[in-house]
Amino acid sequence: MNLKELARHLGLSQSTVSRALNGYQDVSPDTRERVLAAARRFDYSPNASAHRLATGHSGAIGIVFPSGNDPLLDPLFTDFLSGLTNSAARRQTDILVSASLDSAEASYRRLAQRGSVDAVVLSSPLVEDPRLPLLDRLGIPCVVHGRTRSPRPYAFLDIDNEGAFRQAAELLISLGHRRIGLVNGDRRQAFAVDREAGWRSALLRAGLSAPDTLNGSDIMTDEAGYRLTAGMLANATPPTAVICSSIFSAMGACRAIRDRGLTIGSDISVIAHDDGITSIRPEAHHPPLTTTFSSIHRAGERIAEIVADLIDGKDPARCQEVWPVDLIFRDSTRPPAGA
Amino acid sequence: MNLKELARHLGLSQSTVSRALNGYQDVSPDTRERVLAAARRFDYSPNASAHRLATGHSGAIGIVFPSGNDPLLDPLFTDFLSGLTNSAARRQTDILVSASLDSAEASYRRLAQRGSVDAVVLSSPLVEDPRLPLLDRLGIPCVVHGRTRSPRPYAFLDIDNEGAFRQAAELLISLGHRRIGLVNGDRRQAFAVDREAGWRSALLRAGLSAPDTLNGSDIMTDEAGYRLTAGMLANATPPTAVICSSIFSAMGACRAIRDRGLTIGSDISVIAHDDGITSIRPEAHHPPLTTTFSSIHRAGERIAEIVADLIDGKDPARCQEVWPVDLIFRDSTRPPAGA
Repeated sequence: MNLKELARHLGLSQSTVSRALNGYQDVSPDTRERVLAAARRFDYSPNASAHRLATGHSGAIGIVFPSGNDPLLDPLFTDFLSGLTNSAARRQTDILVSASLDSAEASYRRLAQRGSVDAVVLSSPLVEDPRLPLLDRLGIPCVVHGRTRSPRPYAFLDIDNEGAFRQAAELLISLGHRRIGLVNGDRRQAFAVDREAGWRSALLRAGLSAPDTLNGSDIMTDEAGYRLTAGMLANATPPTAVICSSIFSAMGACRAIRDRGLTIGSDISVIAHDDGITSIRPEAHHPPLTTTFSSIHRAGERIAEIVADLIDGKDPARCQEVWPVDLIFRDSTRPPAGA
Repeated sequence: MNLKELARHLGLSQSTVSRALNGYQDVSPDTRERVLAAARRFDYSPNASAHRLATGHSGAIGIVFPSGNDPLLDPLFTDFLSGLTNSAARRQTDILVSASLDSAEASYRRLAQRGSVDAVVLSSPLVEDPRLPLLDRLGIPCVVHGRTRSPRPYAFLDIDNEGAFRQAAELLISLGHRRIGLVNGDRRQAFAVDREAGWRSALLRAGLSAPDTLNGSDIMTDEAGYRLTAGMLANATPPTAVICSSIFSAMGACRAIRDRGLTIGSDISVIAHDDGITSIRPEAHHPPLTTTFSSIHRAGERIAEIVADLIDGKDPARCQEVWPVDLIFRDSTRPPAGA
């Protein structure tokens, strides 16, 4: 049954039926009830597909969570998602979140079959990420938050992770540090590889070594930051400074330093990467932390714009941005003791 | 152009075209490329609406954020959303999040017009919430997380907020406390009204007064918890115990107590409502906090099941649950000094 037939059945104009179904208040409650009841009885889904058939768009951007890892419990991800959601809303676009139970592939296939999304955002890319060729096969446009390897040009927004961590290490070297530890994220992830490359290149350029004992990698939590830093400080030749991949790792690193009876800044310098999340501010720390800074919320906002460009037909090769990262000098970074 | 015409144009079987469009790997890359290119050229959206037209379902549950308030920055909400998303995934259902820029009404209307969702979840209901009659007009099924006033039966899952706070106050009274402060959430919200009612009824039943000076209400942050508690402690007759509506308010309350040189437990007892979020555990606090406990993550999981029942046609009046709340006694709660 179509709108015309439904209107004839009810003895109402098509316009009245349509306004009733769309919830306009100028239709009396009684009429609305009658229209809704009839639509239900004849299984008429007025809204379900007309928009989509007319425009070819669902008006939604998808995000699929990998199985066994729930990013909604990670403040970095939810701050990103907040930026994405609010920015997309300015274009009347919504965000569809989908959790994978077994494989992400099943979720992406479902989105493709249902036509649920116009594009997806791919977060936390691996160096070689199987999701990109899958999305290519499924014909779902995609914007990567970060970078990965791909034989074909793809849309992405990344920050200059390598440059940021090289700069951070160079700052410490210029202050006189010679043993600089890296408290990195999971090194299967592309951003962690880039940060390690930046740290390593600064050390090697200065004629210093980048030993494995100073090259820590794990998830970016307070607890893992504590463990990695405590391990380095227990070395025969401990670092005089550490660079941490997140504000959470840095919290743990600072605890480990204090627990060893050392003072942040004067004994051990600390630099943290700060994604600018609202709940923890590096300048409110004691002492205030030197940071490499880039707002992950703004990255989410910008990615919604890049997705809109991509859906409008812009060449993915022209939807590529690498943002420079600020280095903000604060009290946690000083010359090493005795220098 | 339909699938049959597209297949004829390409000289392929409909099955091959369909499998190519759905990303199956048994189609050669060359063929897939040809199919996708043709589909794009003829603006054929294979997936967009077929599923929806066939089933009448979008396979998505909607959540609309109120304007000017981004719950993605609130760990309580993201823990709820995590439970909802993961539980919905077990039924191949995704979650559509939509931020309101001006009014929630525009977002709900958009969802209705596009047929984007099969139902919505309504969070943080007000005592009188205009969203419920709006959704009724729009014909969008809805499950409320919490309760509100409605002339018609509606689906909801709530915890027994009134009972929980009455029990908490009764515990303090039985220990000998006579001046019990309430550090509540925003009292425009239904849950805060219910908690205040529980606190008040315990006090009145015991022949005690429930003065406004001990009845604080604000957003549930560390900062607001600090301010409300510090204000009560500065009174001529300060409380000997406080009951806090969230673990964040309780953090602030504990700081305010310590900043006044008082000891939690022996000087001022503290009870907090604990939603069971992963990032802050009341038992890891010093001293461990007595709590009223109910997992907001499990509430999210259960609401996805209630939504599925509702979509399957279950009567909303039979989709109503009130969960009892556990009272967990720990060290932060003792008899008042001198009792």
